Amino acid sequence: MTEPCYDVAHLGHVELYSDRFDESLDFFTRVYGLTESGREGDSVYLRAYDDYEFHTLKLTRHHTTGVGHIAYRTSSAEALERRVKVIEEKGWGVGWTEGDLGHGRAYQFKSPDGHLFELYWDTREYVAPPEEKPALKNIAQRYHGRGASPRRLDHVNLLAADVSLIREFMTTALGSRVTEMIQLDNGRLGGCWFTINNKTYDLACSEDHTGSHGRFHHVTYACDQREDILRAADIFLENGVHIESGPHKHAIQGTFFLYVWEPAGNRVELANAGARLILRPDWKPVVWTEADRKKGQAWGMKTIETFHTHGTPPVAHK
Amino acid sequence: MTEPCYDVAHLGHVELYSDRFDESLDFFTRVYGLTESGREGDSVYLRAYDDYEFHTLKLTRHHTTGVGHIAYRTSSAEALERRVKVIEEKGWGVGWTEGDLGHGRAYQFKSPDGHLFELYWDTREYVAPPEEKPALKNIAQRYHGRGASPRRLDHVNLLAADVSLIREFMTTALGSRVTEMIQLDNGRLGGCWFTINNKTYDLACSEDHTGSHGRFHHVTYACDQREDILRAADIFLENGVHIESGPHKHAIQGTFFLYVWEPAGNRVELANAGARLILRPDWKPVVWTEADRKKGQAWGMKTIETFHTHGTPPVAHK
Amino acid sequence: MTEPCYDVAHLGHVELYSDRFDESLDFFTRVYGLTESGREGDSVYLRAYDDYEFHTLKLTRHHTTGVGHIAYRTSSAEALERRVKVIEEKGWGVGWTEGDLGHGRAYQFKSPDGHLFELYWDTREYVAPPEEKPALKNIAQRYHGRGASPRRLDHVNLLAADVSLIREFMTTALGSRVTEMIQLDNGRLGGCWFTINNKTYDLACSEDHTGSHGRFHHVTYACDQREDILRAADIFLENGVHIESGPHKHAIQGTFFLYVWEPAGNRVELANAGARLILRPDWKPVVWTEADRKKGQAWGMKTIETFHTHGTPPVAHK
Amino acid sequence: MTEPCYDVAHLGHVELYSDRFDESLDFFTRVYGLTESGREGDSVYLRAYDDYEFHTLKLTRHHTTGVGHIAYRTSSAEALERRVKVIEEKGWGVGWTEGDLGHGRAYQFKSPDGHLFELYWDTREYVAPPEEKPALKNIAQRYHGRGASPRRLDHVNLLAADVSLIREFMTTALGSRVTEMIQLDNGRLGGCWFTINNKTYDLACSEDHTGSHGRFHHVTYACDQREDILRAADIFLENGVHIESGPHKHAIQGTFFLYVWEPAGNRVELANAGARLILRPDWKPVVWTEADRKKGQAWGMKTIETFHTHGTPPVAHK
Repeated sequence: MTEPCYDVAHLGHVELYSDRFDESLDFFTRVYGLTESGREGDSVYLRAYDDYEFHTLKLTRHHTTGVGHIAYRTSSAEALERRVKVIEEKGWGVGWTEGDLGHGRAYQFKSPDGHLFELYWDTREYVAPPEEKPALKNIAQRYHGRGASPRRLDHVNLLAADVSLIREFMTTALGSRVTEMIQLDNGRLGGCWFTINNKTYDLACSEDHTGSHGRFHHVTYACDQREDILRAADIFLENGVHIESGPHKHAIQGTFFLYVWEPAGNRVELANAGARLILRPDWKPVVWTEADRKKGQAWGMKTIETFHTHGTPPVAHK
Repeated sequence: MTEPCYDVAHLGHVELYSDRFDESLDFFTRVYGLTESGREGDSVYLRAYDDYEFHTLKLTRHHTTGVGHIAYRTSSAEALERRVKVIEEKGWGVGWTEGDLGHGRAYQFKSPDGHLFELYWDTREYVAPPEEKPALKNIAQRYHGRGASPRRLDHVNLLAADVSLIREFMTTALGSRVTEMIQLDNGRLGGCWFTINNKTYDLACSEDHTGSHGRFHHVTYACDQREDILRAADIFLENGVHIESGPHKHAIQGTFFLYVWEPAGNRVELANAGARLILRPDWKPVVWTEADRKKGQAWGMKTIETFHTHGTPPVAHK
Repeated sequence: MTEPCYDVAHLGHVELYSDRFDESLDFFTRVYGLTESGREGDSVYLRAYDDYEFHTLKLTRHHTTGVGHIAYRTSSAEALERRVKVIEEKGWGVGWTEGDLGHGRAYQFKSPDGHLFELYWDTREYVAPPEEKPALKNIAQRYHGRGASPRRLDHVNLLAADVSLIREFMTTALGSRVTEMIQLDNGRLGGCWFTINNKTYDLACSEDHTGSHGRFHHVTYACDQREDILRAADIFLENGVHIESGPHKHAIQGTFFLYVWEPAGNRVELANAGARLILRPDWKPVVWTEADRKKGQAWGMKTIETFHTHGTPPVAHK
Repeated sequence: MTEPCYDVAHLGHVELYSDRFDESLDFFTRVYGLTESGREGDSVYLRAYDDYEFHTLKLTRHHTTGVGHIAYRTSSAEALERRVKVIEEKGWGVGWTEGDLGHGRAYQFKSPDGHLFELYWDTREYVAPPEEKPALKNIAQRYHGRGASPRRLDHVNLLAADVSLIREFMTTALGSRVTEMIQLDNGRLGGCWFTINNKTYDLACSEDHTGSHGRFHHVTYACDQREDILRAADIFLENGVHIESGPHKHAIQGTFFLYVWEPAGNRVELANAGARLILRPDWKPVVWTEADRKKGQAWGMKTIETFHTHGTPPVAHK
């Protein structure tokens, strides 16, 4: 067995595009419960109350929806250099950027399906202004209980024409481990779940049947309790947010989930993993077959059809 | 900054002594909700339903109470060798054992306060017998909902005459990080919380004022939801278990907790950390002062006096 | 306004038929978490831990499934006489029985759709044997936490060819109030929810499209928390119980629910109403239209088709 | 057995005095989560989101703290007349008022300890303005999730020099039933819990040892889930609200509770009773002895000293 790679520490942030920017921003702050920590150009920087960095969501005004880029923070400055070397050798590299409001220089690269990724070490720690100082010094910001109020960024889910290429990309470029996957009867990978640390996953990828590339499925923040998600369902209901599916429990990964569409159409999830972690260093991927998947979600709910068809940006009708 | 050490993967198991063995075993299986996976000699091997290894608690018949040993699993065979080298250089080593029912060869060593530790790589994976096969293939064993039914081992808490020696020991021998600590006005460390991975802590140590050495404070399993802990409180109540403190929320680490004494007197905790994890690679320890601690637990409950005085084995009255 | 009628105090018990008796009994005790309090003839008497009477479910071995009878307890001996007088005048009466293991003499009568009802005053209080004595003296029996472990009987749901006849029956025979109802576009009542006290409902009735009579839709026990229901979903899953629908929140009545089929096919629900009560003496029925119902359940889940078609006993195929 | 009395339907509202009015109002709306439905003179009218009436809390600017009056709604206009007759015969009557913003004419009377009570039938139903219309038509107002966000008024707790006089008063004037009580070794009643409907209690009274009269202990709103109360504890913590005791579970009545002091010093509770109701028409009061009470709350927490000493208005120091 090769020793695991620890060069990358965690998913850092996701940039999301919106073509209904003001409504999206209202959703993410007032209803979903994130806090704005800054704005620059066409972007507003947002964070959950216990995210330690300046931002975990960069919401950018754009002519369409979808994902701008996905960023991971490395474990050290040296680890960043090691990763860049591997990525350049594989030919996925794009090049260095000077960073933005939320972090310093970052190395950009692209997934085989065209999603833009970023690795960075130098970050900007969130320093709570006086009115946001928490009562307990071990959380990053005070808990408001405004809207859904998740604790922290959890994971991102992408669509790709060939999931097996994403598997090679994630395990090689970042050193991620595969924790669970769907093996289709036709031999293809239907979906794959990756982690870079002890979380059960920080990135997932499902097959895109539309022939499009670089599309986005959803971004997820984590709540402390399942009850937070049931409560959020009422808040979404009262605010006219489209609830797509849930609350229910995933068979894969066992996560308790709720999917909604923010006003511009990007899918957003709230999730709770309970005490489940991948602590085992020699974890063996859990493989789900099509027969397994026919049983539906953990408690039998059939997965809603749009979950397999809706991604952002939408596919152009020619 | 030195790069973090990843040689040790996670807390593996704890051996607990009981001088009321049958009652302790009944508590841990029927009331606390662990499952027996084997027995040999004076020991019964126990595990929570989603622990991936054969056991996480070794309950041993003994003339007294307290902790037998604390074991961590390394990240690889090579990592085990690296750790042993460091430990031997520091003079903490005891030597190799052939393992037991639950794992292969292990290296034993002692903390400066006399607690016996063990590091191992070769483990015995739990393979569920037919009647324990879970409905979903990504958990280790079926969920019975019997008693408190925690998901997995979480952490152990030790007492030591000089917590700062334990800090040096944990960070050097295992490569653990300090996540939070109590700095007393007299300059001593009142308590220290350590982690080897993304959990907020897997071992904690508090100052023992009795002049004793090598004593045990508590062992903790993690529940998925805070509601599991409220429900467990009723189960403990109905079964005549001594509830010492809680349910409440810790100020330090923010964990929702419940402390009980198993029939022999060892303190046992149920805990839920919500979605809180230490993902930050350059985490800075949170330091609590005596003034901070005077505010009590998170929601103001004063810590019960026995929490500062009761450890196992009890201190002999001379 | 006529003053409300308080002659009937609460739903007392339901008799359920099973043609797979042993499996049904195993389900209700080990998985659903009721306790047997006695058996006689073809029947076993069951109760939830905080039901104050000897039984709330009478499970009877039978050649088919469905409901045997539905019993309500009156508010006094005099109130029973008053009700019997009204019922006899309406021509619904069947006559007096001597009661059974669980209560004294009772007056039997039939709904216009053929369901057998019973009214009684003389009851048998549950007296906990020593091993079932609760730790707190204000609950009827100790809380075991075995299986789903609901607290008390909540309501029963019947099918009828003409719901409006059931409405006249329930409001006249028992003095029940209508709390919510479904008004179909064709002018018929699609469903109707009744209460005799401050609960939001203790009996509901939906239209049976099969041309059958006297059929049963489901019986429900109440859990204290929604988390109890999420936890029960895992227990049902692990025990191979057919989960039909949920957990989710009803639009009508706002109840958090989970429907399963016990081994013989009778539908059984677990529910939680939160703090919702009908305290208002001049409550006006909430009327739901077909357009309202097309929105699905509270959080948008479409009601599963079998919910509209499956009743017990099953309709004979000719 | 005399048949129970059903003349009174439910606790309607409580008037609370504050000598720090603006801070109290900010607490009740922004932190506790009530909604203002109107203001007149020195009073602001407040309600929880599912209270069906115009208001359930009347907060009045005053030179001190404590309770203004406690109001119950009758079951009908006739029932109001019946109650007034009984009250006048007992000599407790004060006389009729024309009502206020929230209801029509009301009859006022005084408890033997001097607390002002009111009975009314004509009420003002809350009609949600467009921005407060709920998504589901069976709740009174939309759910905001702002602050603690309880569902409805639950109960009020008073102090009295002689609890047995309050027992006679409540059972005679209103027709309340005693559900639980504390029998002191000295023969006196230490506390008594009353209900007028199926709730386990809507008014409680504890012995006031200070020689004062007409004092107030606390007012309580009900949350749907225990998790709502744990979440509220964090909100109180972040807003600098004094948390006096809890969250924990009462031994008496089994209610899950949390007590805080609003800025002026009046004690306010959040509570959850789970599925517990008093459905039994011949309920026998549960009697707790001093020995019982020494065991503390349900899970062993000792009741905090201020719970026995702090009432409003505070006792003048002479």
